[in-house]
Amino acid sequence: MSVTAARGFLACGVAAGIKDSGARDLALVVNRGPSRAAAGVFTSNRVQAAPVRWSRRALADGRISAVVLNSGGANACTGQAGAVDALLTAEHTARVVDAPPSEVAVCSTGLIGVRLPMDRLMAGITAAGGRLSPEGGQDAAVAIKTTDSVHKTAVASRSGWTVGGMAKGAGMLAPGLATMLVVLTTDADVSAAGLDAALRSAVRTTFDRVDSDGCMSTNDTVLLLASGASGAAPEPEEFAAAVHAVCLDLARQLVADAEGASKEIEVTVVGAATEDDAVEVGRSVARNNLLKCALHGEDPNWGRVLSAIGTTSAAFDPDRLDVAINDVWVCRNSAAGESRDKVDLSGRLVTITVDLCSGDSSAVIWTNDLTAEYVHENSAYSS
Amino acid sequence: MSVTAARGFLACGVAAGIKDSGARDLALVVNRGPSRAAAGVFTSNRVQAAPVRWSRRALADGRISAVVLNSGGANACTGQAGAVDALLTAEHTARVVDAPPSEVAVCSTGLIGVRLPMDRLMAGITAAGGRLSPEGGQDAAVAIKTTDSVHKTAVASRSGWTVGGMAKGAGMLAPGLATMLVVLTTDADVSAAGLDAALRSAVRTTFDRVDSDGCMSTNDTVLLLASGASGAAPEPEEFAAAVHAVCLDLARQLVADAEGASKEIEVTVVGAATEDDAVEVGRSVARNNLLKCALHGEDPNWGRVLSAIGTTSAAFDPDRLDVAINDVWVCRNSAAGESRDKVDLSGRLVTITVDLCSGDSSAVIWTNDLTAEYVHENSAYSS
Repeated sequence: MSVTAARGFLACGVAAGIKDSGARDLALVVNRGPSRAAAGVFTSNRVQAAPVRWSRRALADGRISAVVLNSGGANACTGQAGAVDALLTAEHTARVVDAPPSEVAVCSTGLIGVRLPMDRLMAGITAAGGRLSPEGGQDAAVAIKTTDSVHKTAVASRSGWTVGGMAKGAGMLAPGLATMLVVLTTDADVSAAGLDAALRSAVRTTFDRVDSDGCMSTNDTVLLLASGASGAAPEPEEFAAAVHAVCLDLARQLVADAEGASKEIEVTVVGAATEDDAVEVGRSVARNNLLKCALHGEDPNWGRVLSAIGTTSAAFDPDRLDVAINDVWVCRNSAAGESRDKVDLSGRLVTITVDLCSGDSSAVIWTNDLTAEYVHENSAYSS
Repeated sequence: MSVTAARGFLACGVAAGIKDSGARDLALVVNRGPSRAAAGVFTSNRVQAAPVRWSRRALADGRISAVVLNSGGANACTGQAGAVDALLTAEHTARVVDAPPSEVAVCSTGLIGVRLPMDRLMAGITAAGGRLSPEGGQDAAVAIKTTDSVHKTAVASRSGWTVGGMAKGAGMLAPGLATMLVVLTTDADVSAAGLDAALRSAVRTTFDRVDSDGCMSTNDTVLLLASGASGAAPEPEEFAAAVHAVCLDLARQLVADAEGASKEIEVTVVGAATEDDAVEVGRSVARNNLLKCALHGEDPNWGRVLSAIGTTSAAFDPDRLDVAINDVWVCRNSAAGESRDKVDLSGRLVTITVDLCSGDSSAVIWTNDLTAEYVHENSAYSS
């Protein structure tokens, strides 16, 4: 399954010794075609890791034959030496899979500011080349884990064609700076432009709406590769819907696996004048540390929701805000509504609904609560 | 000291029974003149508590004769009933201190979404009227505490005139939504316009640069009252400097008293193209939960600093960023610099210096680390 659910793809995951633990830390995904069309979305952070810079250039012509991914080191903030390391990684992978280096995407995840152990990485790529398999998707998904407690894969099968994928990232609350890597594959026959449109649309309402600290990391990368091996050429809407379904599934798995979190929080903003307003308000609520602490303590503190809304530039009347927590409208017209005692926060899933009473647009943002375990994990990570 | 260090002011702090604990929870500050000139700065949050709305209107003509402050309840998000409560509070205070209601400012702090116990508050105001004293500044400072571990006062005495003040707020990391209240007094003879200029200038580089979650609360209020009782009319620059000194002193006390924090973090951004750029970068660094956790764990994780810088729109070259932690330049040209082993993070004060290498502007932002104690306090607050 995973990246090998779609026909035309080989993958594997091996232990190259990049991680001290001896766990799998290197994955290879190879597109055997006939098509090599590809699209990608990269971090919006202006400080970008060397592999992101490399892969962005490699994708410029819409063709990717292989993706090499490593955990155990992000190759971010490593200067010119790190850029050379990414280039050497692509070149060696290209030799192993018999493709031009310009068709090899490189993804790295782990600690930043530290060079990769290139000797081990190169040997690992050679070894991985001999282990490629149409059943290797699972091993690849395992090899890209950092603090993830489980590997994450998703598949959407349609009549005659499939979209599959893998993701790493223990929620946006994960300690790794180089948080999210996603590789999606399909055996549908879709042009690079078609892949790009479907991927951007899907990412915008899935991965981009998983939020805790407000920004993609230095390494975040989402790739979509098409082999065309099914011979099927789906309608754009149908294809986009399948890509969206896989992205949403993986995004929810990221939130569910947020290490240190005890709650998954879904913030739905309705009644917004525009979708941008809804997203801005949703993000502001999702990023509010005080609210995230309150929900951890199972306290339906709607005042902290209003305070977060008040910091945005969205259209609303400060005296006409409604807030529901787990479907109990605890705040009506910006004041106390139904009794907060009715709110049961004992479960893992928490829904917050904000009605801005200003229009018909809406958006959903996913986040987690803030816990002592989060602090512990993120203060102990690299020391 | 405190608000009664300057001549012409009376104050007191009493226990009105608003807090269940029986602690002091009501303060009164009265300006006996001859001047009643005043200025104020209020929260930029669009969701504003009833007392903020009232005080903003009262200050419109630049005259304030008295300030009534309560802890134990913020009177925020309380709808029309809360607005009436703020009005009744001002009217009753006006009767007690013999001034027009339009010259009475009202400040409240505590939980939001809950009505104030008006019977106790009114009786407390009556009682406070009989306890006003030129030595009452200390009691007033104690009465406005919420989760503050200590009361906070500061005084700057110049030749013939004085600026004094009190503040409440356990850092921006405090659990109360209605975080910061500050009352400053002076016996200098300064017009309302002069007070406004000095206060805005001081707040901009002091209270506005204490940052953890990026926004003022629903109740934040800073007031400056002048009695003119010294007869001295200082030069604007001299007066502004004294107001700045008192604001800076109080702002640092807020950071130092952040409950649950183990570190005070000073983020200095230099080499910025503009001061706005420096502030944007400083805030982004100061708000980064991952960095705040790392510093709590005494881990000089400069990668998290770069990641935070990368999310801003400030002018910089992503390959030319320098970062020092406690004066060790651990990052040069966006890559590893001096050994991170040289950084001693065992002390309470942490300095982070970011050089954007893009100009001559700079700014300083103060924040705290993120700790399990912070999570505990903020998840247990109102439940």
